[in-house]
Amino acid sequence: MSNGNASELDLVIINGKLVIPPDVTSSSIGVRGGKIAAIGTDLSGLAAKKTIDAKGNYILPGVVDPEAHLAVHRSLKDDFISETKAALAGGVTTWGLMLTSPTISREYKEFKDPEDSVPFSQVIPILQELGDANSMVDYFLTPLVATDAQVEEIPRLAEEFGATSFKYYLHLKRGRDTLGQWEPQRKVGIYGFDDGTVFIGMEHVGRLGPPCIVCIHPENWEIIRVMQARLISQGRKDNSAWDHRSPHFVEAMHVRQYAYLAKVTNCPLYIVHTTTQETVDEIIRARNEGVRVISETGYHYLALDHNVYKINVPLRDRATMKKLWAAMAKGDIDCVGSDHVNHGVPREKMEVKGDVWKTISGFSSRVEALLPVMLSEGVNKGRISLPRLVEVCCENPAKAFGLYPKKGLLRVGSDADLVLVDLKKKQKINKSMLFTTAGWSVFEGWEMTGWPYLVLLRGEVALEWNEKEQKANVVGKPRGRYLARKLGHAVYPLDA
Amino acid sequence: MSNGNASELDLVIINGKLVIPPDVTSSSIGVRGGKIAAIGTDLSGLAAKKTIDAKGNYILPGVVDPEAHLAVHRSLKDDFISETKAALAGGVTTWGLMLTSPTISREYKEFKDPEDSVPFSQVIPILQELGDANSMVDYFLTPLVATDAQVEEIPRLAEEFGATSFKYYLHLKRGRDTLGQWEPQRKVGIYGFDDGTVFIGMEHVGRLGPPCIVCIHPENWEIIRVMQARLISQGRKDNSAWDHRSPHFVEAMHVRQYAYLAKVTNCPLYIVHTTTQETVDEIIRARNEGVRVISETGYHYLALDHNVYKINVPLRDRATMKKLWAAMAKGDIDCVGSDHVNHGVPREKMEVKGDVWKTISGFSSRVEALLPVMLSEGVNKGRISLPRLVEVCCENPAKAFGLYPKKGLLRVGSDADLVLVDLKKKQKINKSMLFTTAGWSVFEGWEMTGWPYLVLLRGEVALEWNEKEQKANVVGKPRGRYLARKLGHAVYPLDA
Amino acid sequence: MSNGNASELDLVIINGKLVIPPDVTSSSIGVRGGKIAAIGTDLSGLAAKKTIDAKGNYILPGVVDPEAHLAVHRSLKDDFISETKAALAGGVTTWGLMLTSPTISREYKEFKDPEDSVPFSQVIPILQELGDANSMVDYFLTPLVATDAQVEEIPRLAEEFGATSFKYYLHLKRGRDTLGQWEPQRKVGIYGFDDGTVFIGMEHVGRLGPPCIVCIHPENWEIIRVMQARLISQGRKDNSAWDHRSPHFVEAMHVRQYAYLAKVTNCPLYIVHTTTQETVDEIIRARNEGVRVISETGYHYLALDHNVYKINVPLRDRATMKKLWAAMAKGDIDCVGSDHVNHGVPREKMEVKGDVWKTISGFSSRVEALLPVMLSEGVNKGRISLPRLVEVCCENPAKAFGLYPKKGLLRVGSDADLVLVDLKKKQKINKSMLFTTAGWSVFEGWEMTGWPYLVLLRGEVALEWNEKEQKANVVGKPRGRYLARKLGHAVYPLDA
Amino acid sequence: MSNGNASELDLVIINGKLVIPPDVTSSSIGVRGGKIAAIGTDLSGLAAKKTIDAKGNYILPGVVDPEAHLAVHRSLKDDFISETKAALAGGVTTWGLMLTSPTISREYKEFKDPEDSVPFSQVIPILQELGDANSMVDYFLTPLVATDAQVEEIPRLAEEFGATSFKYYLHLKRGRDTLGQWEPQRKVGIYGFDDGTVFIGMEHVGRLGPPCIVCIHPENWEIIRVMQARLISQGRKDNSAWDHRSPHFVEAMHVRQYAYLAKVTNCPLYIVHTTTQETVDEIIRARNEGVRVISETGYHYLALDHNVYKINVPLRDRATMKKLWAAMAKGDIDCVGSDHVNHGVPREKMEVKGDVWKTISGFSSRVEALLPVMLSEGVNKGRISLPRLVEVCCENPAKAFGLYPKKGLLRVGSDADLVLVDLKKKQKINKSMLFTTAGWSVFEGWEMTGWPYLVLLRGEVALEWNEKEQKANVVGKPRGRYLARKLGHAVYPLDA
Repeated sequence: MSNGNASELDLVIINGKLVIPPDVTSSSIGVRGGKIAAIGTDLSGLAAKKTIDAKGNYILPGVVDPEAHLAVHRSLKDDFISETKAALAGGVTTWGLMLTSPTISREYKEFKDPEDSVPFSQVIPILQELGDANSMVDYFLTPLVATDAQVEEIPRLAEEFGATSFKYYLHLKRGRDTLGQWEPQRKVGIYGFDDGTVFIGMEHVGRLGPPCIVCIHPENWEIIRVMQARLISQGRKDNSAWDHRSPHFVEAMHVRQYAYLAKVTNCPLYIVHTTTQETVDEIIRARNEGVRVISETGYHYLALDHNVYKINVPLRDRATMKKLWAAMAKGDIDCVGSDHVNHGVPREKMEVKGDVWKTISGFSSRVEALLPVMLSEGVNKGRISLPRLVEVCCENPAKAFGLYPKKGLLRVGSDADLVLVDLKKKQKINKSMLFTTAGWSVFEGWEMTGWPYLVLLRGEVALEWNEKEQKANVVGKPRGRYLARKLGHAVYPLDA
Repeated sequence: MSNGNASELDLVIINGKLVIPPDVTSSSIGVRGGKIAAIGTDLSGLAAKKTIDAKGNYILPGVVDPEAHLAVHRSLKDDFISETKAALAGGVTTWGLMLTSPTISREYKEFKDPEDSVPFSQVIPILQELGDANSMVDYFLTPLVATDAQVEEIPRLAEEFGATSFKYYLHLKRGRDTLGQWEPQRKVGIYGFDDGTVFIGMEHVGRLGPPCIVCIHPENWEIIRVMQARLISQGRKDNSAWDHRSPHFVEAMHVRQYAYLAKVTNCPLYIVHTTTQETVDEIIRARNEGVRVISETGYHYLALDHNVYKINVPLRDRATMKKLWAAMAKGDIDCVGSDHVNHGVPREKMEVKGDVWKTISGFSSRVEALLPVMLSEGVNKGRISLPRLVEVCCENPAKAFGLYPKKGLLRVGSDADLVLVDLKKKQKINKSMLFTTAGWSVFEGWEMTGWPYLVLLRGEVALEWNEKEQKANVVGKPRGRYLARKLGHAVYPLDA
Repeated sequence: MSNGNASELDLVIINGKLVIPPDVTSSSIGVRGGKIAAIGTDLSGLAAKKTIDAKGNYILPGVVDPEAHLAVHRSLKDDFISETKAALAGGVTTWGLMLTSPTISREYKEFKDPEDSVPFSQVIPILQELGDANSMVDYFLTPLVATDAQVEEIPRLAEEFGATSFKYYLHLKRGRDTLGQWEPQRKVGIYGFDDGTVFIGMEHVGRLGPPCIVCIHPENWEIIRVMQARLISQGRKDNSAWDHRSPHFVEAMHVRQYAYLAKVTNCPLYIVHTTTQETVDEIIRARNEGVRVISETGYHYLALDHNVYKINVPLRDRATMKKLWAAMAKGDIDCVGSDHVNHGVPREKMEVKGDVWKTISGFSSRVEALLPVMLSEGVNKGRISLPRLVEVCCENPAKAFGLYPKKGLLRVGSDADLVLVDLKKKQKINKSMLFTTAGWSVFEGWEMTGWPYLVLLRGEVALEWNEKEQKANVVGKPRGRYLARKLGHAVYPLDA
Repeated sequence: MSNGNASELDLVIINGKLVIPPDVTSSSIGVRGGKIAAIGTDLSGLAAKKTIDAKGNYILPGVVDPEAHLAVHRSLKDDFISETKAALAGGVTTWGLMLTSPTISREYKEFKDPEDSVPFSQVIPILQELGDANSMVDYFLTPLVATDAQVEEIPRLAEEFGATSFKYYLHLKRGRDTLGQWEPQRKVGIYGFDDGTVFIGMEHVGRLGPPCIVCIHPENWEIIRVMQARLISQGRKDNSAWDHRSPHFVEAMHVRQYAYLAKVTNCPLYIVHTTTQETVDEIIRARNEGVRVISETGYHYLALDHNVYKINVPLRDRATMKKLWAAMAKGDIDCVGSDHVNHGVPREKMEVKGDVWKTISGFSSRVEALLPVMLSEGVNKGRISLPRLVEVCCENPAKAFGLYPKKGLLRVGSDADLVLVDLKKKQKINKSMLFTTAGWSVFEGWEMTGWPYLVLLRGEVALEWNEKEQKANVVGKPRGRYLARKLGHAVYPLDA
């Protein structure tokens, strides 16, 4: 009946509910060689080295989180070691790292000189070496470009290193000229660039074609400096002042103007933070003009209002959060990201209560609550369906960054990155369960409904939360691999 | 290792290339109980009653052809018997029948009285009885509505009969008042309606929600009557005069105006014939306004120019055909239909050479060449990819009409409607291979590259073309079933 | 110093405030030969046969009312005799008559046969004869076309008779097929036409070029028949049901669809009744597409809400009225019309109190209150400025219909059609002051602020309201003249 | 007949053809107290101190040239003395001076320090003193703002000094950071600003309301630096490289992005150089969004192609020039400006033949040929009508800058700024006829048809070209006056 080892599966997961947009199928899933080898209503006839009973729980593809900022406050190696565990805990199996070139090095330092912006071709080998040795999840690089020299390297980066996505920190365009010395700027080493730099990059990306894409952080700090001065002079110090400092149009304006350049250069555009309806409106306008625009929002913009903390771009008010959920449900927002960063210090060392100006911006460890919050606030509160969650957290980011269908979906031939979710599990978030070395989460005390309890990376368990334990366990050694995208292929060629 | 019969497959197809948009996977596919039970790189471990070796050929989902007009010139029973075989030959396993109520009866007649437009609730049982007894393919009904009474029945039709799509012959809105007695009109029994009738139907559909949809044949014959009179007075008799009689704007204008009503009533709109760039432009405009518009074109509009034959809406010029292919590749045209009809007479009895006005419009048996033409003219000539063909011929029509994911894709749990395609096979189209009783095809003499050689309906072979034979063989008895869509479900609930 | 009689003025009006958009100039105005011969701060040096002291009151150009329906319920001659006096009282010196061909005849009758729709070329001589003998105001004809034969005559009508504007009663497109026998339809003799008829007319107008224009009454009665049946079945009989019978989109939809035909044919479009924001939105959309669209609203849509009376298109609610004023102030609505008609019977014979369905639609004598209402409700309530009133009541209608700058403004060389207005005069409207033979006004009892007290037609006093009298007096004999527009001239050539 | 001196005119011009858009009237025009006191077909009855016979020639309002750059290369006083004579020769009677604050001083210098950007309130009195003493034409100031301090002064400038228009040199936003030290930048003293500075200014202007307006020079030099480097590396040195250095989208992009800010701040926007179809398209888009946008082009962009000379923004190719004429005729471009500047040196000292990079940009004395070129290239070549010329050269600039109807048209009460034009006069442009101290014109050698031969400023002859002489003569002393606009009045209040 069976013809032996040749067809033997490494693993079969039975009694699962596979979330394959637009719906859910009761099915088993078989894994061999790290890939999904079979999907079937009954695979019990197939020999398998190991069987996992999903007990009717949902099986999702591993989350593809397109936005993580490692090596900002610590060495890249240290962040790889600790933060990729946090990523696993958040359901992430593929991590998009948005890094400046100087931060990719073996030792952490603060950067002071434009000379630190070395070519990415020089540092990607370091990234691969550190990542392949220390990362618990697969990862790809979105170079955070900042100089003409760096963007002129784009064709080589795409061809040689499979780096096909490139990000501009538009708020830092003028470097310190806008708001003076900004701490993170010194830490990551961006010294200012201009629209010429953006244009060169977009031109390269447009010519190279899919899967190349340009990502932008849209936020016009030249206008923000005016707002900030006004708010300070008014004596405002509350957290919501940070939202008012960066009014909606300041984000939307950048989308409008760079969507125009994208049109001129035939360059696809990825909006890293879509946090306002005005931005959504500009994205729709641009699409109507024929520009390919993909929009991401951070899950924190969906879950946290502007009274909670300080971050760039700012958290918004509750009315806006509602609109963002609706835009996501409707299809105007495509992707979710964590925007993860680790400051490496406790909350008390960052936050100055009652003074938003003195508080350090950007709460730590966003990735760890990614999937729980999306399940609890999104699916279980009826704002999006579970298949839609898989689209925005897995499928669409994989498509946007040239990894689909290798990553982002449940399909024979794809990587067996799997997340088993107990949609009814209730779990309060607390310090002791965190993997990030920052040691705190802005979500502490939230009781979530829905939790990922088993995460597999390419067919092998990487994280599991045993029923009686108080936290998840990371399983095994770092097995994460650098993901080189394939130039010339809008979709990742599985057979190649 | 295996647990015996419980997991035994009815059939396994090995060595296939599964076309699952956006790409192709080398895989086997297992069938049990008429459904796809397993997909795997190697399913040889699973017991199977029967094995088919695809020998590296492509496996597509069965074509979902949304537009067939049976019972226009013959009885519905007769057309079910012969024409569903033709459909199988064209790769079709799910057929959308667009029928007026009077034509659904046991005997064929010509209709002369508005009283013939009986309620659809009265005739759908007849349709089911005739179809379930005689159809070789699964089928669903899109009532061709024409009276207030019929559109007022829509909620009942959707709830009781799973008829959720409704079509208006907009060109016949004023009945015989526009162009006098039109032969097909007499045959199908449409006596004229008005925008009120359209409005009532759209209102019902908008309120009922997905998967309900309104389909339109957009073509303003009130303007055509002016054009026709001019062309006749100019002495034009060539086939292309038929195109000039119905200039592009006459089609696009209807899309614009009814997309407006669709917006007002929150009603999804399906454009049955998209044959001009102007129509595509209006569709894009409507989408930009937030109207859900799905666009179909007939494959004949892609393959045949306006010198070939007379049909409503007309074939267009070669420049327009090129634009339609581009619109399909780009995503602006979603679906392909056959617009099949069988006049039951040879070409000589329809065509008056050199006089388009005397020629009977609408060449017979369009369905039979559907997939071959799309493979040969589309895929093998590089105009669309094979995954895109599956989207426009299978996935999108299934989605549009509420049958996805039961129909239209290769996925565990879906119906095992499968088409095996030899993409390199060369085959000249000739009379002797046809199943339609019309006995002729406008494509006679065309040598196609790429041909479907095995068609399975719900897991069982329905048509096969043995290597040494000159034509395909229909296999087995009629097994086609009426497909009731599920009101309240945007996608077809597989588990229900 | 002076060279005698050659330069002597026939009349000089001193101490006036000339309303010349965008502002007002204190000035005198001299008339010679029926035309404005001089404007000056001090013309006292010029000899003048007669002097009128304006005493600081405003001088406006005579109102150009583009929409009057004479001969609907009485003979054209009778309406010319009485209703042009009413027009003068309303400040009108140029009247656009929108007439069907059968109503232009010496005797009044009701029309029953399509054969009554004789060519306009046959009846315009009658119109000229009756008008030149009996009209107190200058007048031009906008043929209300309704048959192919009539629209095929357009080039001849424009060239030979200077009839360059043409109107379609779109609500009556299908004649009695839509709502059965409609009384006014029988009276004016429109038996139904189709989009072919509209297309032919637009094609002619587009080819002929300025000042040719097509006017439409946009209101889709095919949908209205559905609404009407619902309201009746709900037992609604109040006046506002008439508004709900014709929801906003029913008007806007026609604008959208015929603006498309106008684009295709390069034909300027004049929207006779713009009564909803939705219509305004469609007008803006059409303009954005490059279609030349001019929009009119009736002043009654600005002043009367839907509880007041029944009329086609209906009066609207107060929120909509507010939007119409705003659209007029902003420039989205260009023109004001009276839509005058005279039923010849008292209100009691038309209105069935409490039953809108039995009430006869269309209150009488709209023209008589035109300028008073615009002054009182518009200017004195701060909704529009006096210069804007002159634009919408004089300048823009004159431009739209090819009469500018002969009519519609105060300028040397233009016809000396002048209206002196006391902007502070308070006057209650009552039956005894009316000139219409209908003998009643829907505005009875309204106290207006601002009133025209002297009207000159081509330099001669035509109506005056002496200070101590209770009503105005018509002065002199009928001097109105038929105005032939000049084909080939976007503006009326004064020197020709 | 006459009542003596009270009504006596200072001047009457008889036998003129008054160009009053949209047409032309044969008429006389009388002047008293510097204003137009009467217009009439025959004013011979009015006493007049002086009579001029126009002999059938056209009488235009004096040109309102909104864009002149004095004091760039010489002292403001010197430029006032010589260049306002050149303006008169070009038909200009009202000059819009666009000046930075440091250049308004008694002595000319080059500026090196940001401290030179003193408040405008400090220098406007100097401007008034110098201008009122030395200018041959009326003039108004459009401050060329460049610092936060300057834009924060806007409310005061508008209220106290009637300065209601403000210009941003967007190409110099980043000061010397973009292209290094740019010579004119050093000369006028702009050291770089940012979008915050623009935002503050727009916010003030939006709040102050009409006639306030923000003017922009749209040209993104950040992208130009990339283009320039490429062209230089390709060895390009020809004049057209200057066009390719600043591709169309670089101009249009600025319009798009600042039109967005204008929308956000409700600020009217004046596009100083509209030189591409792409820019026109953006202007139309912005208007469609409800932004008030007025567009100017320099007449040199209509007459000179990119092979002729180097200027910012660049001259374009002939196909583009044709589109600009069409946009002006159609109404998409509203105004014409001269962009006058005087380098004070002969062509040989500026131009390095064959090396566009070494040539000094900006040919001198543009104003002197303004009206002749518009008459010859525009009217006499049939590209625009004479009334349209008056709209774009007089009426629209006057409206845009809050001077209408005081300036820009022929109307009783307006300033008697008059230009008599012989539309058939042929005249070759040569050095000897020039008034500018630069002493050369890029139009030398062109034979023009149509020439202004008499210019009156507020009723008095300021320049005349006697029939037998080889050049025009300036008549009388400097009588130019500073024009303070009236805040709170969209149109200039003549009676105030």
